[in-house]
Amino acid sequence: MATVKSPLNDEARKITAEALQGALIDLIDLSLFAKQAHWNLNGRNFKIVHEHLDEVVELARTYTDEVAERAIALGINPDGRVRTVADRTRIPQLEPGYVADDKVVAAVTDVLAQMIERFRERVRATDEPDPVTQDLLIQATRELEKQHWMFQAQV
Amino acid sequence: MATVKSPLNDEARKITAEALQGALIDLIDLSLFAKQAHWNLNGRNFKIVHEHLDEVVELARTYTDEVAERAIALGINPDGRVRTVADRTRIPQLEPGYVADDKVVAAVTDVLAQMIERFRERVRATDEPDPVTQDLLIQATRELEKQHWMFQAQV
Amino acid sequence: MATVKSPLNDEARKITAEALQGALIDLIDLSLFAKQAHWNLNGRNFKIVHEHLDEVVELARTYTDEVAERAIALGINPDGRVRTVADRTRIPQLEPGYVADDKVVAAVTDVLAQMIERFRERVRATDEPDPVTQDLLIQATRELEKQHWMFQAQV
Amino acid sequence: MATVKSPLNDEARKITAEALQGALIDLIDLSLFAKQAHWNLNGRNFKIVHEHLDEVVELARTYTDEVAERAIALGINPDGRVRTVADRTRIPQLEPGYVADDKVVAAVTDVLAQMIERFRERVRATDEPDPVTQDLLIQATRELEKQHWMFQAQV
Amino acid sequence: MATVKSPLNDEARKITAEALQGALIDLIDLSLFAKQAHWNLNGRNFKIVHEHLDEVVELARTYTDEVAERAIALGINPDGRVRTVADRTRIPQLEPGYVADDKVVAAVTDVLAQMIERFRERVRATDEPDPVTQDLLIQATRELEKQHWMFQAQV
Amino acid sequence: MATVKSPLNDEARKITAEALQGALIDLIDLSLFAKQAHWNLNGRNFKIVHEHLDEVVELARTYTDEVAERAIALGINPDGRVRTVADRTRIPQLEPGYVADDKVVAAVTDVLAQMIERFRERVRATDEPDPVTQDLLIQATRELEKQHWMFQAQV
Amino acid sequence: MATVKSPLNDEARKITAEALQGALIDLIDLSLFAKQAHWNLNGRNFKIVHEHLDEVVELARTYTDEVAERAIALGINPDGRVRTVADRTRIPQLEPGYVADDKVVAAVTDVLAQMIERFRERVRATDEPDPVTQDLLIQATRELEKQHWMFQAQV
Amino acid sequence: MATVKSPLNDEARKITAEALQGALIDLIDLSLFAKQAHWNLNGRNFKIVHEHLDEVVELARTYTDEVAERAIALGINPDGRVRTVADRTRIPQLEPGYVADDKVVAAVTDVLAQMIERFRERVRATDEPDPVTQDLLIQATRELEKQHWMFQAQV
Amino acid sequence: MATVKSPLNDEARKITAEALQGALIDLIDLSLFAKQAHWNLNGRNFKIVHEHLDEVVELARTYTDEVAERAIALGINPDGRVRTVADRTRIPQLEPGYVADDKVVAAVTDVLAQMIERFRERVRATDEPDPVTQDLLIQATRELEKQHWMFQAQV
Amino acid sequence: MATVKSPLNDEARKITAEALQGALIDLIDLSLFAKQAHWNLNGRNFKIVHEHLDEVVELARTYTDEVAERAIALGINPDGRVRTVADRTRIPQLEPGYVADDKVVAAVTDVLAQMIERFRERVRATDEPDPVTQDLLIQATRELEKQHWMFQAQV
Amino acid sequence: MATVKSPLNDEARKITAEALQGALIDLIDLSLFAKQAHWNLNGRNFKIVHEHLDEVVELARTYTDEVAERAIALGINPDGRVRTVADRTRIPQLEPGYVADDKVVAAVTDVLAQMIERFRERVRATDEPDPVTQDLLIQATRELEKQHWMFQAQV
Amino acid sequence: MATVKSPLNDEARKITAEALQGALIDLIDLSLFAKQAHWNLNGRNFKIVHEHLDEVVELARTYTDEVAERAIALGINPDGRVRTVADRTRIPQLEPGYVADDKVVAAVTDVLAQMIERFRERVRATDEPDPVTQDLLIQATRELEKQHWMFQAQV
Repeated sequence: MATVKSPLNDEARKITAEALQGALIDLIDLSLFAKQAHWNLNGRNFKIVHEHLDEVVELARTYTDEVAERAIALGINPDGRVRTVADRTRIPQLEPGYVADDKVVAAVTDVLAQMIERFRERVRATDEPDPVTQDLLIQATRELEKQHWMFQAQV
Repeated sequence: MATVKSPLNDEARKITAEALQGALIDLIDLSLFAKQAHWNLNGRNFKIVHEHLDEVVELARTYTDEVAERAIALGINPDGRVRTVADRTRIPQLEPGYVADDKVVAAVTDVLAQMIERFRERVRATDEPDPVTQDLLIQATRELEKQHWMFQAQV
Repeated sequence: MATVKSPLNDEARKITAEALQGALIDLIDLSLFAKQAHWNLNGRNFKIVHEHLDEVVELARTYTDEVAERAIALGINPDGRVRTVADRTRIPQLEPGYVADDKVVAAVTDVLAQMIERFRERVRATDEPDPVTQDLLIQATRELEKQHWMFQAQV
Repeated sequence: MATVKSPLNDEARKITAEALQGALIDLIDLSLFAKQAHWNLNGRNFKIVHEHLDEVVELARTYTDEVAERAIALGINPDGRVRTVADRTRIPQLEPGYVADDKVVAAVTDVLAQMIERFRERVRATDEPDPVTQDLLIQATRELEKQHWMFQAQV
Repeated sequence: MATVKSPLNDEARKITAEALQGALIDLIDLSLFAKQAHWNLNGRNFKIVHEHLDEVVELARTYTDEVAERAIALGINPDGRVRTVADRTRIPQLEPGYVADDKVVAAVTDVLAQMIERFRERVRATDEPDPVTQDLLIQATRELEKQHWMFQAQV
Repeated sequence: MATVKSPLNDEARKITAEALQGALIDLIDLSLFAKQAHWNLNGRNFKIVHEHLDEVVELARTYTDEVAERAIALGINPDGRVRTVADRTRIPQLEPGYVADDKVVAAVTDVLAQMIERFRERVRATDEPDPVTQDLLIQATRELEKQHWMFQAQV
Repeated sequence: MATVKSPLNDEARKITAEALQGALIDLIDLSLFAKQAHWNLNGRNFKIVHEHLDEVVELARTYTDEVAERAIALGINPDGRVRTVADRTRIPQLEPGYVADDKVVAAVTDVLAQMIERFRERVRATDEPDPVTQDLLIQATRELEKQHWMFQAQV
Repeated sequence: MATVKSPLNDEARKITAEALQGALIDLIDLSLFAKQAHWNLNGRNFKIVHEHLDEVVELARTYTDEVAERAIALGINPDGRVRTVADRTRIPQLEPGYVADDKVVAAVTDVLAQMIERFRERVRATDEPDPVTQDLLIQATRELEKQHWMFQAQV
Repeated sequence: MATVKSPLNDEARKITAEALQGALIDLIDLSLFAKQAHWNLNGRNFKIVHEHLDEVVELARTYTDEVAERAIALGINPDGRVRTVADRTRIPQLEPGYVADDKVVAAVTDVLAQMIERFRERVRATDEPDPVTQDLLIQATRELEKQHWMFQAQV
Repeated sequence: MATVKSPLNDEARKITAEALQGALIDLIDLSLFAKQAHWNLNGRNFKIVHEHLDEVVELARTYTDEVAERAIALGINPDGRVRTVADRTRIPQLEPGYVADDKVVAAVTDVLAQMIERFRERVRATDEPDPVTQDLLIQATRELEKQHWMFQAQV
Repeated sequence: MATVKSPLNDEARKITAEALQGALIDLIDLSLFAKQAHWNLNGRNFKIVHEHLDEVVELARTYTDEVAERAIALGINPDGRVRTVADRTRIPQLEPGYVADDKVVAAVTDVLAQMIERFRERVRATDEPDPVTQDLLIQATRELEKQHWMFQAQV
Repeated sequence: MATVKSPLNDEARKITAEALQGALIDLIDLSLFAKQAHWNLNGRNFKIVHEHLDEVVELARTYTDEVAERAIALGINPDGRVRTVADRTRIPQLEPGYVADDKVVAAVTDVLAQMIERFRERVRATDEPDPVTQDLLIQATRELEKQHWMFQAQV
């Protein structure tokens, strides 16, 4: 089967692949994490937090697609299968059942803070090998940091 | 923590919970399966199949949300966390890397055919205990069968 | 040539096929009937009846497509060819030439009343073999009964 | 004066009439109840609850119209006059003057819980005599149960 | 519980309260009156009058909200509960059952003519105490007079 | 009953009537032909041909209405009843059941080629008697020739 | 002052100027005529005729602009001043005060019939000197004949 | 023929009628004046002035309709026929043929300045007899004064 | 340089100028005040208050433009330069750094209450000299009082 | 390779081909000419001319596509490759670097005047062989003449 | 009170804070500067410059919000209070009263040229400490340089 | 004639000019190349490739404008005249006449691959002299690489 010819050399492609695959895992699980909280939420601020979580889902889904399509455009096969995500995700999982609104706010703040660290590392790693990919990761980071502030502000 | 008071009795709720949680697993994994194919696709019909798969993703995401919110409205906690989905999904997983367009079409046809069987079973199961849930499952089944036809027609 | 594999067994498919094919004939001819009246209308209430008839056309076209695609999704080939419709339609045909507005209102009321009887019979027939098809026929019936009321109210 | 010829027999029409007229009273008063709270609300969660109540008003108005037009389409005259609603409503009335946000949330939760019981009864009652009406009542029940969950979650 | 501090003195607020509460009763019942006619209508002009009545409902609902929110913004609690409206409305009630189109047109013309007199009195009454409220009542009056003309023109 | 007074003399009206009625038969049957293929389609190019056929349906329906309303505006009664169309159509009918995508493409190309010949003849015929009608037929011909090219290009 | 250089020779421009200026007078007065009737209308069909007249106003305004801009594009100064229109219009004027709906329908039918004769003459006149202008006049004639039919149908 | 019953007494209606009829003449001729300039314009600022004049036309047409419908709603027959406007307009007419952009700007500024004086007089005159009409005239005056400033600013 | 000729006499213009310039200062600083809070907000109700503040910014910006353009239309030069606003604003300034959500709600309530007093004084002042300006100030006051109520309700 | 079967005979196709290919060259270069001026423009009227030129680009691109698709629909291969356009264009080229606004206005006026002559010749040439193509060329000519007037008016 | 935890270290945050706070002052005053000119403008090019200035306001407001929210997302409190802006702005202030269009064009060109220098310095300064912030400043610079060109082109 | 003052020094401007002018040639010819294929296409995948090519045209046109306006904003005159593009383009030209769909897919893949190399070189070249331009080129590169992948995937 034909493979996509990459505009990057092997070394650059390898580093970029790692950054993009890592980002993909983070973003897919962020969307599932936020949906889980969106459904099982409880507490006086239910309505506004319920809606706020869908902004996070939207953000996560948008960049999931951008990141995966960026990978394949470079000849890198993204792996977003459920088993792969489950095995490699570094996002701490929610307990099953109801979750209180203040706990959700704290948990999302933490998840985003950890993801931001990893995204900033990916921005650094791709600076040399592929500034085009780096630019995409910078945009994603800015959106994650904006959401991180808004959740942290209500802790 | 307050729990949502269900309009169903315990027996009805238990059957309905099983149907909805099963549907949830199916739908979340369908969205990840279709995205994986959407990205790693290859072949002469790439463009049209690539776009067609996003219709499936859209369908899966819409009913994921409907099904999960239906569960919680009945006092049933949906579990859509990535590990839960990975452990319980009955959808056969794609191989990593490129997938040819005709193989994708065949695989999606199979996945949908299997899901339709499970959804028709859930429609039967919920007829007595909760016709409101049944009505939602009927709608989802109709959409799945429509997509099944359209993929099957191009095998 | 590949055929669409039906989720129904043979008996169920046969009953469902009859219901859907019958509905298809009714709906296609309803759209042609209403257009014929829409063009050849005459009388003081011309403008409002002229516009009202296009709502009926819209309804008929929407459900024509839904019903035919439902059939093929079940492995049933819908037949909406003009000769088939002409031979099998049970809708009484309009005279050629001008039709007065009050006669049109009366004729549409009658056509809808007869179609509703046939649709209600189809709803009953499909209850067992395919509740998914039944749900679609119920929706169509509700729309037809709404238009029936609105035409009858101005007789 | 001409009356709308019903597609139902007398017995079926009588049962269906009772279900639809009961639903109509419930829905009209729900819209007035929610507006009264929308205006006289007070408390730290004022803004989000104020907006949430308008979603309930929207839902109530939409199904008021659907239910009443369903009735008349069956030859049943709906009665939504203010005196009729005031005399027959089973929704407990709010006290005049300011109402605190947490009291509103609790009151709406109760009102919806009671209405859901009555709607589920109507769904059962119309199963035999008119599955077309039942389908409409099922949809309304699903929306009511969704709002019930969202208010209950913030109690 | 905190009460909204009014920008008006007690005397001005009292007069304004009376005007706004009176307008509220009128507008809520106008919306119910028009809907009752919208559903139970009969006659050759059914379709156009049926649609015209919904313009009245829309107008009534828009100003109901404006008037009630104007009241509470002045520290006046609007009372739009169904029993209050039923007890205080000065709008003559429709008979139950079918209503002929020409009778509806005449009845709406009368109801609007009476409401316009009351609204013009409220415009006069609020000129001194609150020109801001007066401006809102002037707008509502202009819309009511426009509808009054359009119904009267077809009597 | 009043008849529409034509701006054309008898001779001109007769020629124009023939052209418009012929076009009407062609266009109605084209819409039914394309829908039949749209539903019963099969083959690797299913999705794109399925969607392409709906563009043809849309074109056919738009000009059906334009042509019929042009006729009546000239005092000519269009006849678009199903039996009339079935008896007079010159479009070769599809076989019942599944049709392969390449056969559909070839068949639509043929149908359009034949219709274009008839439309060009109608353009010639109406040049003298009614340039206003001719202008409409020219527009329709341009659209038909555009679709003809696009189907022919994929044969 | 610079004048627009015409693509037409003097003879052609003179004939075209006459056709366009004549059309301009007709169209401006048609818009004023229809508005006068729109406001002073009376009778059982008030609402639908009132709205229908605004379609005529819209048509008249659209072609007023097209016709005048066509003239100036050919170096012909259109004259649409009120005194010019009042002096040269050939449209019979309405009586002041209320006009009954059936009289309006008859009057609009007549006005359109007369305008159509003049437009058809202009179509003939411009065939040789400027087919581009002719094409615009053909379009306008088609719209006028469509409205003529719709008013005539309700006489 | 039925006449619209006015909410005003005879004296008030007479004053209001004069104000509204005067405004109507002004607004209709303003729309024709601005269109005449829009078409025959010439000069370096052609494009921006050409577009600016259409804002004036839009304003004039909007308030023409509001003012005329306000009149008839009060039982006053508006007279917007072309001869009436031509005879009574107080707007100085443009010369035929090309008009230079700076002359147009000056002329529009003058026309608006004169209209504003007349509108302010009408605002004063209607204060007592009909504050509802006055409110409409105030809105129109504000829009006219805004356009007056914008034309004057470029003189 | 040309100055805009005012429709007001000197005395009226002076009073109106004072009212409009005062309103302008208030509105510009309100927009900056609300944005400062929008950014530096903190606390459990962060998300809803953050969004609510942008409604205030929107309101302030809309009326800033209306008020300034009203001034210049009267030949009054609005002064909205930052130094002018800083020197003349009567709105108490926020402390730098984070502000808690309840403090923001209280502060906005106070700022609006004070502005409303000043706006009501401006409404009174402009009644005689310019009712057109007064009408604009009345509209602004109504919007400010609506927001004042909504913030006060959550104190 | 399959070629598109033309509805024209050889002679007619040859003449039509020449007209369409000529128009294509004109339109493609017009779009590049107007963009070049759009970017390198200079002078007091920069902003409005800059925007006006994009209307010309839009017009040129729209008809480029219409003309080329009309050609291929007739079995004529359009040639819009850059080298072909550069070799055959008859549009005088702009000097490189800045161009003053008045020079641009004059140059566009000239270019359009010349193109209009060629388009009018093409309209004449296609009258016999293909009235469908002629109709498209007439529309394009009308748009070009409208833009020609608007540029010429500001020279 | 909780403070937002920054993803930057102290040194990086200090440099970034300076860049963002400086940009904020520039952007807020640019929006006020452009509005002041928008209102007090005078001269032959009034209309187009008036509208062009609102594009600058729009740009300034958009980036004001982006820049301030970027700051707070990094744990930096933006200060956009009116006194702060007045004291620190480096934008030369307009004189009060009317400003001629050519002076405004020159002044905006100068203001933008100076801001661009400061923004380019901020782009350089943030390269190391925070590439995410730098990316935002690069976007803002590009928009400012685009507007700078468009104003400079008309000097 | 005034020239735009560049924010770059001479050296930086020279490098940036070369990058932008090179990109401009590439992008203009890409749009013409893709349109030529869009029209002359042939083969079983005609419809989807035909539509896909218009996405490339859209992309090329968007960045053509961005790149040229970026150049002029830096005081660099872009040259997009047809002869310049024809002489300097490095894109291999299509043969005249029909092109088969698979050949088009291969040709577009090659053209994009070559352009991407040149764009990546331009990204490198502008890093030092103008990061603002570099950011624009990075965005364009990402879009080109995305399209390259999608064409390559169907080879």
